[in-house]
Amino acid sequence: VRVLIAGADGYLGWSLLLHLAARGHVVAGFDNLSRRARVREMGSDSATPIASWAARLPLAEARGIEFLLADAAGSPDLIAATVRDFKPDAVVQFAEIPSAPYSMIPGREWEVQQNNLASTWSIMNAIRKHAPDCHLVKLGTMGEYGTPNLPIPEGYAEMLVVNRRVGSVDWSQTDTVPFPRQPGSFYHASKVHGTINLALAAKTWGLACTDIQQGVVFGCETADMTHPDLLTRLDFDEYFGTAINRFCCQAVIGHPITVYGKGGQTRGFLPLADSMQCIQLILENPAGAGEHRVINQIESTYSVRELAHIVRREALNLGMPARVSHIDNPRDEAEEHFYQVEAEKLRVMGYVPSTGVGAEVRRMLITLAKYKDRIEKFRHVLVPQQHWSGEKIPCATT
Amino acid sequence: VRVLIAGADGYLGWSLLLHLAARGHVVAGFDNLSRRARVREMGSDSATPIASWAARLPLAEARGIEFLLADAAGSPDLIAATVRDFKPDAVVQFAEIPSAPYSMIPGREWEVQQNNLASTWSIMNAIRKHAPDCHLVKLGTMGEYGTPNLPIPEGYAEMLVVNRRVGSVDWSQTDTVPFPRQPGSFYHASKVHGTINLALAAKTWGLACTDIQQGVVFGCETADMTHPDLLTRLDFDEYFGTAINRFCCQAVIGHPITVYGKGGQTRGFLPLADSMQCIQLILENPAGAGEHRVINQIESTYSVRELAHIVRREALNLGMPARVSHIDNPRDEAEEHFYQVEAEKLRVMGYVPSTGVGAEVRRMLITLAKYKDRIEKFRHVLVPQQHWSGEKIPCATT
Repeated sequence: VRVLIAGADGYLGWSLLLHLAARGHVVAGFDNLSRRARVREMGSDSATPIASWAARLPLAEARGIEFLLADAAGSPDLIAATVRDFKPDAVVQFAEIPSAPYSMIPGREWEVQQNNLASTWSIMNAIRKHAPDCHLVKLGTMGEYGTPNLPIPEGYAEMLVVNRRVGSVDWSQTDTVPFPRQPGSFYHASKVHGTINLALAAKTWGLACTDIQQGVVFGCETADMTHPDLLTRLDFDEYFGTAINRFCCQAVIGHPITVYGKGGQTRGFLPLADSMQCIQLILENPAGAGEHRVINQIESTYSVRELAHIVRREALNLGMPARVSHIDNPRDEAEEHFYQVEAEKLRVMGYVPSTGVGAEVRRMLITLAKYKDRIEKFRHVLVPQQHWSGEKIPCATT
Repeated sequence: VRVLIAGADGYLGWSLLLHLAARGHVVAGFDNLSRRARVREMGSDSATPIASWAARLPLAEARGIEFLLADAAGSPDLIAATVRDFKPDAVVQFAEIPSAPYSMIPGREWEVQQNNLASTWSIMNAIRKHAPDCHLVKLGTMGEYGTPNLPIPEGYAEMLVVNRRVGSVDWSQTDTVPFPRQPGSFYHASKVHGTINLALAAKTWGLACTDIQQGVVFGCETADMTHPDLLTRLDFDEYFGTAINRFCCQAVIGHPITVYGKGGQTRGFLPLADSMQCIQLILENPAGAGEHRVINQIESTYSVRELAHIVRREALNLGMPARVSHIDNPRDEAEEHFYQVEAEKLRVMGYVPSTGVGAEVRRMLITLAKYKDRIEKFRHVLVPQQHWSGEKIPCATT
């Protein structure tokens, strides 16, 4: 498969570039390096010492990968020319700003939504014009669904309105409809906007679309990162870090593992290597023309509290002093709730989880211990300050 | 109530300015005049000879209305200063590009979404910063819901997933969720994006929001338009014209009344005067802090075919030769479908429909007959060319 990856310099993008190239696919990628800039602006850096763009270029070239500097949101013409020249069978859209807290900084809501919508439009229009049979694989998030008191199907479900007075309206009918989306941040909302646009482009333009509702990815390497120069980034700051990755960085430097609120927040998770396996399966089993295929991409669901204790246990086993600490929740979210997810489509395609969460956390702690000094340097970004209300004040221990 | 109207030069904006000022409210409005420019660019003009911006200024001033030139999407700082200085109790957001076919012109999808999202962000951020208790009244559309095989509640409903295999997932639970939205164009999608952002701003910022899911408005005047200089615009071109308004313009010049496809497309409609009455009721009965109140604003539902025959009948009664003609449907939409809408909230507030559709159409035909020459001049814009697939070819009579 000829695959073009938008956002190829990021956590998932760089990993996928290496993963696909090592498996015989023809791969190209582009990025505007804005993730590097935004993490620096937020006062942090990747825990792993990633290669600069200039250093990644020859590494990519040596693997037959075309690697371009391009801003998907700002340069639709360049993206169109890239699609025209590369003739991809699939484009993977990773070129979005992936941070909920960042999107809740007053005044940055529209920066996130503008970038995320504009970059997807550049790609959709490029495909429509130059490669109409191309498979668009867009990264969404399980967070699009929020935490309803309903099991979560894969994108669509047959549903019914219940408990309404009868009157002149017939409330007994059922229909297959998009499952309701209840995003919890303006970033998550931008992903729902993308889902809505994709569904419509599939219907009216005939675009072949896979919309991945991905869980939280954790892990700092894959089997393809055979040398430290090949490592992908790993963020742990309050903006771009995510639960397990941040917990491991905290454990490595002896910082308390900070759980937001009660920690009953339950989400889908999957290891980085599994995310690569799943996306490969999706690329090798494309959506049909005009199809908006929604796939829930998770290995399993865990509460944040459970995960914190898994990280603590694995850290203690490695002789790292580790403890779990609950802090005020800066987010506006349910801290104890129902959560059940249907995630069958990838299993049917052949997805087999590669590892247990404990084993993966152990590997992460060992790798991250090498970069302890880098993490220690940014100790101040490990406790969140950005509240969903807009206020910026450090969260206190409860 | 002190009301600030965004998009005050448009069809509804100018009408609401006059309506509220005549009823003792303190009113200000702004606009960037982009509707005038876009209609001209599409090769058409308003059927009614509306006053220029310069001529409207003293008309507004004489009624105590502040009337400013400002681009909501492009000038967030100016919008913030306007909210800071005017201190509104409510802002009415009409500053969006309101055309489904326009949004389906290849390359204009993002122009529509960018404008509609950015303008709402300017307003939301201005309110948050300078008038946090202000009531945000945003115009959405009944088209956000699409045409599901389910009755349409007002925004939210208790729902259930049906007919799933049982397995380990409990599918029997119910929850109150946002009713699924299935927009039929990228314009309608932009309104769904707005609804999602509004719901989240209500929840996380505590904004008081009313989200109007309005039906198609028809009619070319209200009781406040006591002089031709005060008339609001009335568009009839394929991009900015809507069903009944376009049908009346066609009847007035003896052009066939063109129904797209079978004409079983059923939608909610309401006269212009009723839209004004409803918005006044909403302003006088504001949403609470943190509330995302969704209101279905329609008088009744009709199929496009029924409406075409009502216009034909009224035109014949006035001695205008009129006939109904079916043409290829440029849109991707169901032409016969289930459609039931719940619209109780406005009735509870006191909304009483002012007139029957036949009587209103008769009034429109009499008024529009005065501007027959203006409509005749743009006869070529009465048959659609812009298909949902992106192609631009005139639709043939079926």
